Amino acid sequence: MATLNDIGVAAAINILTAFAFFLAFAMLRIQPVNDRVYFPKWYIKGLRSSPLVNGSAFASKFVNLDLRSYTRFLNWMPAALQMPEPELIDHAGLDSAVYLRIYLLGLKIFGPIALIAFTVTIPVNWSNNTLEHSGLTYSDIDKTSISNIPIGSHKFWTHLVLAYCFTFWTCYVLKREYEIVAAMRLHFLASDQRRPDQFTVLVRNVPPDPDESVTDLVQHFFLVNHPHHYLSHQLVYNANKLSELVNEKKKIQNWLDFYQNKYKRNPLKRPSLKTGFLGLWGNRVDAIDFYTSIVERLSRDICGEREKVNSNTKSIMPAAFVSFKTRWGAAVCAQTQQSRNPTTWLTEWAPEPRDVYWENLAIPFVFLTIRRLIAAVAFFFLTFFFMIPIAIVQSLANIESIEKALPFLKPIIEVKFIKSFIQGFLPGIALKIFLLLLPTILMMMSKFEGFISLSALERRSASRYYFFQFINVFLGSIITGTAFQQLNHFIHQSTNQIPKTIGVSIPMKATFFITYIMVDGWAGVAGEILRLKPLIIYHLKNSFLVKTEKDREEAMDPGTVGFNTGEPQIQLYFLLGLVYAVVTPILLPFITVFFALAYVVYRHQIINVYHQEYESAAAFWPDVHVRVVAALIVSQLLLMGLLSTKEASQSTPLLITLPVLTICFHRFCKGRYEPAFVRYPLQEAMIKDTLERAKEANLNLKGFLQNAYIHPVFKSADGSDSDSESESEWERSPALVATKRTSKRFTPMPSKDGGSLLSLDQVNDECLKP
Amino acid sequence: MATLNDIGVAAAINILTAFAFFLAFAMLRIQPVNDRVYFPKWYIKGLRSSPLVNGSAFASKFVNLDLRSYTRFLNWMPAALQMPEPELIDHAGLDSAVYLRIYLLGLKIFGPIALIAFTVTIPVNWSNNTLEHSGLTYSDIDKTSISNIPIGSHKFWTHLVLAYCFTFWTCYVLKREYEIVAAMRLHFLASDQRRPDQFTVLVRNVPPDPDESVTDLVQHFFLVNHPHHYLSHQLVYNANKLSELVNEKKKIQNWLDFYQNKYKRNPLKRPSLKTGFLGLWGNRVDAIDFYTSIVERLSRDICGEREKVNSNTKSIMPAAFVSFKTRWGAAVCAQTQQSRNPTTWLTEWAPEPRDVYWENLAIPFVFLTIRRLIAAVAFFFLTFFFMIPIAIVQSLANIESIEKALPFLKPIIEVKFIKSFIQGFLPGIALKIFLLLLPTILMMMSKFEGFISLSALERRSASRYYFFQFINVFLGSIITGTAFQQLNHFIHQSTNQIPKTIGVSIPMKATFFITYIMVDGWAGVAGEILRLKPLIIYHLKNSFLVKTEKDREEAMDPGTVGFNTGEPQIQLYFLLGLVYAVVTPILLPFITVFFALAYVVYRHQIINVYHQEYESAAAFWPDVHVRVVAALIVSQLLLMGLLSTKEASQSTPLLITLPVLTICFHRFCKGRYEPAFVRYPLQEAMIKDTLERAKEANLNLKGFLQNAYIHPVFKSADGSDSDSESESEWERSPALVATKRTSKRFTPMPSKDGGSLLSLDQVNDECLKP
Repeated sequence: MATLNDIGVAAAINILTAFAFFLAFAMLRIQPVNDRVYFPKWYIKGLRSSPLVNGSAFASKFVNLDLRSYTRFLNWMPAALQMPEPELIDHAGLDSAVYLRIYLLGLKIFGPIALIAFTVTIPVNWSNNTLEHSGLTYSDIDKTSISNIPIGSHKFWTHLVLAYCFTFWTCYVLKREYEIVAAMRLHFLASDQRRPDQFTVLVRNVPPDPDESVTDLVQHFFLVNHPHHYLSHQLVYNANKLSELVNEKKKIQNWLDFYQNKYKRNPLKRPSLKTGFLGLWGNRVDAIDFYTSIVERLSRDICGEREKVNSNTKSIMPAAFVSFKTRWGAAVCAQTQQSRNPTTWLTEWAPEPRDVYWENLAIPFVFLTIRRLIAAVAFFFLTFFFMIPIAIVQSLANIESIEKALPFLKPIIEVKFIKSFIQGFLPGIALKIFLLLLPTILMMMSKFEGFISLSALERRSASRYYFFQFINVFLGSIITGTAFQQLNHFIHQSTNQIPKTIGVSIPMKATFFITYIMVDGWAGVAGEILRLKPLIIYHLKNSFLVKTEKDREEAMDPGTVGFNTGEPQIQLYFLLGLVYAVVTPILLPFITVFFALAYVVYRHQIINVYHQEYESAAAFWPDVHVRVVAALIVSQLLLMGLLSTKEASQSTPLLITLPVLTICFHRFCKGRYEPAFVRYPLQEAMIKDTLERAKEANLNLKGFLQNAYIHPVFKSADGSDSDSESESEWERSPALVATKRTSKRFTPMPSKDGGSLLSLDQVNDECLKP
Repeated sequence: MATLNDIGVAAAINILTAFAFFLAFAMLRIQPVNDRVYFPKWYIKGLRSSPLVNGSAFASKFVNLDLRSYTRFLNWMPAALQMPEPELIDHAGLDSAVYLRIYLLGLKIFGPIALIAFTVTIPVNWSNNTLEHSGLTYSDIDKTSISNIPIGSHKFWTHLVLAYCFTFWTCYVLKREYEIVAAMRLHFLASDQRRPDQFTVLVRNVPPDPDESVTDLVQHFFLVNHPHHYLSHQLVYNANKLSELVNEKKKIQNWLDFYQNKYKRNPLKRPSLKTGFLGLWGNRVDAIDFYTSIVERLSRDICGEREKVNSNTKSIMPAAFVSFKTRWGAAVCAQTQQSRNPTTWLTEWAPEPRDVYWENLAIPFVFLTIRRLIAAVAFFFLTFFFMIPIAIVQSLANIESIEKALPFLKPIIEVKFIKSFIQGFLPGIALKIFLLLLPTILMMMSKFEGFISLSALERRSASRYYFFQFINVFLGSIITGTAFQQLNHFIHQSTNQIPKTIGVSIPMKATFFITYIMVDGWAGVAGEILRLKPLIIYHLKNSFLVKTEKDREEAMDPGTVGFNTGEPQIQLYFLLGLVYAVVTPILLPFITVFFALAYVVYRHQIINVYHQEYESAAAFWPDVHVRVVAALIVSQLLLMGLLSTKEASQSTPLLITLPVLTICFHRFCKGRYEPAFVRYPLQEAMIKDTLERAKEANLNLKGFLQNAYIHPVFKSADGSDSDSESESEWERSPALVATKRTSKRFTPMPSKDGGSLLSLDQVNDECLKP
């Protein structure tokens, strides 16, 4: 049992660690050589192309020699807080800005709760001496907790009233935040910028038709059923092999560029290389000729494959991105059922082009059900039985088997110090590796389930990761034992016993969780800003692999906010905070500090580092909301269990009311705010359409949408330069008078200016040019 | 413990009872005097206006003297089965036809299951002699049940395999039936008949606007947001008081008619009456003058009230029925979100005009959440604590308190025979009354919850009634005790113990449920066809109250199928059948007989008797489906509990798989078929619209829709004759060229030919006529 002193010491150590991290960060970030590690966002946005250096000497390119800048080593903190929110949304997108609001939500909830708890609960708890008389070992921490109140005392009314207060406060903050985020989302979606996803709907499960091709089918279906609104459509191709070839070509092209640069710099010596493994052996050939021939061969292959994708109807997936003339038309199509058979012609809002997960676009409806079942079963086993394979690996991975497998290591291993180190280290390593791989495993599961956008994949992974943490970290720490043991325990226990079992253990685990918050939260967040891994990898790549400026840009790894790993971690803190708010309020300041620290750090990172791959317009907020509500309900149930063991059973009816009210609150919020995240009101669409028509009467919308939803491989194939050129060309092209599409209603073949925007044809034309 | 013989005797008694009912029915139905009791449907449809009699003598008007007709006393059965389904749908509506399919579903599921169970399970169970050696008392029934298999026997594999077979068979039949019903519904909705609800959407929670009236607001909103589709709208008035007045007038008018008829028949004596209570005392006045003056006063009151409703903006509710030019437009509006705030401008399909529950149209969104919470809590208490008030009533309603309250009854009560009869009867009567009132109570709860159509009210009541029966009849009979005792029991029991506790008791209760099926099912169904209550009430009314032919028509009470009470009863049989299919298959034939009998009886009743108040196009089928699936899962869990006590635990993993697969099946069905019951595919709408446009190019749709959604009180006020006249007038009126509504987009005032169809104006004009 840790005393207040022990906690103080631990806090001091962790604060010092965090401080050391911040100091290291302050040193490293002002070195020009690290500029691309700590400010990649600005490079990507094209606002910075080289480090801002004061001196012009050679050394100052790598090391910051301006001593004054070292004295202001914490000045990034106010800088991070200065950027106002609207600018932040412009700069980093709504997703990131709303992600920061999760930390703010934590501060808003736990700030006042901590204050009240400290002024009310701690004096009430402290003023008893149950523990002194109990003969049990106890610490000062325990004296501030509910354990110190005698059984059957009337003082439990304080906790009951506080539970109500905290619930109402949390619900109030949650509701207000939901309201704000929903308004932000609607404002963002309605903001003046035109985006292709506002006009586009993804159609899946186009039914096979023996007489018509998919493109004809789609065109006819939408011309008939949305006659005044249908504009065009973009087919979805199965271009996985093409994608591979293009990537291969890109890699080889880089090598070619590198050798050409090298030859340019030193024209006397033509570079050569060995063709064997890693260039270590084999015939020595001329490098430029060698790579030129490979590039040529790959170009031919790509054209062949592209031809195949284009001509072979099998590579056309039964899905399409259908664009409409107005936002109203798209909103209508996305929200309605199209066909009599509800498993065909499934329409939904097209994700943002960057957000599309192309591989899953063609899964039929029946398989989706089956895949979901399999994923659910797999996740169940993963959560409750993950210890079994790890235990097996642990039993295999011992010193003896290593010596057997790699006998030449034997002399080293047999050194006593190393042996004991390995023996202590080895059992944990399998678990560590598993936990590191867990987000990847969960992401693979989500992909298997068939979600069609990256944002949906991340949301799904996040909810599974949270559930895993809830079972294995939260419950696993409170009731020591593996998840399966718990499950077994719970199945054999009566329903009203479960909250009791957990509730009773809660106050005893407070010190453990305080330490956990400091190590995982404080030091973890401070470590996040240091970006040790990207720093090392960047410098390694920069020294050994980077050949061209393009490579250097690719070596820069800005990373993303990482919703699928970050959010579940925050949610764990919400859970801990709400569970301990009434029971052991001493935990609250630690959580509040975490939220404050994380808010500043992540705000800095979002401004300077992270580069979001997609923009889902805060579509994740309902998930965040529902998880906090779930944590609230868990905290209420556990408090009920705890109080029922304290013979304060007269409070049970009042405590049962709390979760009922909370669920009611949740349902209200779901009805009131969730539609803003799922549907798109026609009124908004109409306003936007009308405004646009008034402002840009002869807008060439078809040009704007033409290539928006083309598979990235077709875009990148021509090189990014030509692509952006052609795009801007479309935007510059004079507005055409819209063709009367209705007159073409029964056109059997798609024409180029007509329904289908087969940009593949264009790509192909380029291929056929000599 | 009942033996096979006992069951046989009970069966014989119940078969005889049912037979006696059928005989009585056969006698009564061919009496002309009962014609309106047993064939009201034909009267209502206008296909019959007087009994079909052979003779023309006076006596043959009341008694059937044709002796040959008595010999064919069961010929209604084939007659009931003869009418083919499409004709039945035409005759009685889709709701009734699909309701019959529930019984067919039962036959399809349990017929083959009973066959397999008898050829496989019973021999397997019978071939053991566990019970003989156990020393327990047992019966032949028990010998055919799973109890007869020794603990840990390998014969349990038979039951396991059968559980799988039965699950797959049930799921197969369910899926096929869902498919058929969905197709029937879509066909019905798409059938050529034009119905106002196809074009109409109900808008609720129109936000208050200080500057505009509700009608302007609605018109402007839909002109702006559905410019090409909006046709007109019909406001919703709060006309409860007016409704009362109209009913009052109708009653008085009947009396007036009666006295006028009387005077006409006997012109010598002008009828007179006393004005006091029930015409027993008071001043004697001239009856015709008296009632004429009342009718005149009421007519004035009605006009005044109508004026008030029409002029007072407070009587306009913030809701409206909005009609569209095309089915496509209505389908789009019903399925999309209109406004940024998802709690205003709520749109949903308008129910059929007859189906609207007018009182609930104006409940705001927030109150809906609160009302639902209150109803849920109330239902919880009703289900688990309903015994408490009944016990209190029972303790009060004893002989002593009756004697105290009504001392003049004392001599009668004190007679020994009567006293013992009352003492035996009284405790049960409170419970009986409660159970009779239960459907009414549940219906009131549903009304309180705010559903806006009668069909939704019935569906909600049905699901609550089923839950009540599941807890209090099914579980209550298996684990003897009140629901609250069970709840308490379950809360204090471990989760895996609950299926065991119930599972073990199941085989022991087989004989009880067999008796229950015979009494409640067989005899109940036979009693249903006899229509004893309507028969008695009709004859009472006919003798004492009927004054005019109109009254006689109103005395005829055809009744309805009664989905809210009938369906839960059938579901109980599904549950029993599925639970006992593997455990005690001897129960299955009884259930099969019930389904067959009920099918024939209800088919006869639907053809000849019941008159549905509304048509929801089988919207209840998803509920039926989900309840059968739930019963399947319950049966699987209970089998798991039962087998785990038989030390056949190696079967547990296989048994756990079953509910998982069943849930997966349910989710598949939900995704595949449920949308057909909730949404309306645009493709269908478009096909119908195009066909209609081709067939009736100049259809006056506005005329067709004009009065469709007017509150019934405004329709009935003018008398049904004038109403139908004006309707047919609209249908005959020449087709107008549709006005260009877009040019009116900013019209501030509604014009009569424009947006709002204030038929109230017309009604008013009539009022103002001298």
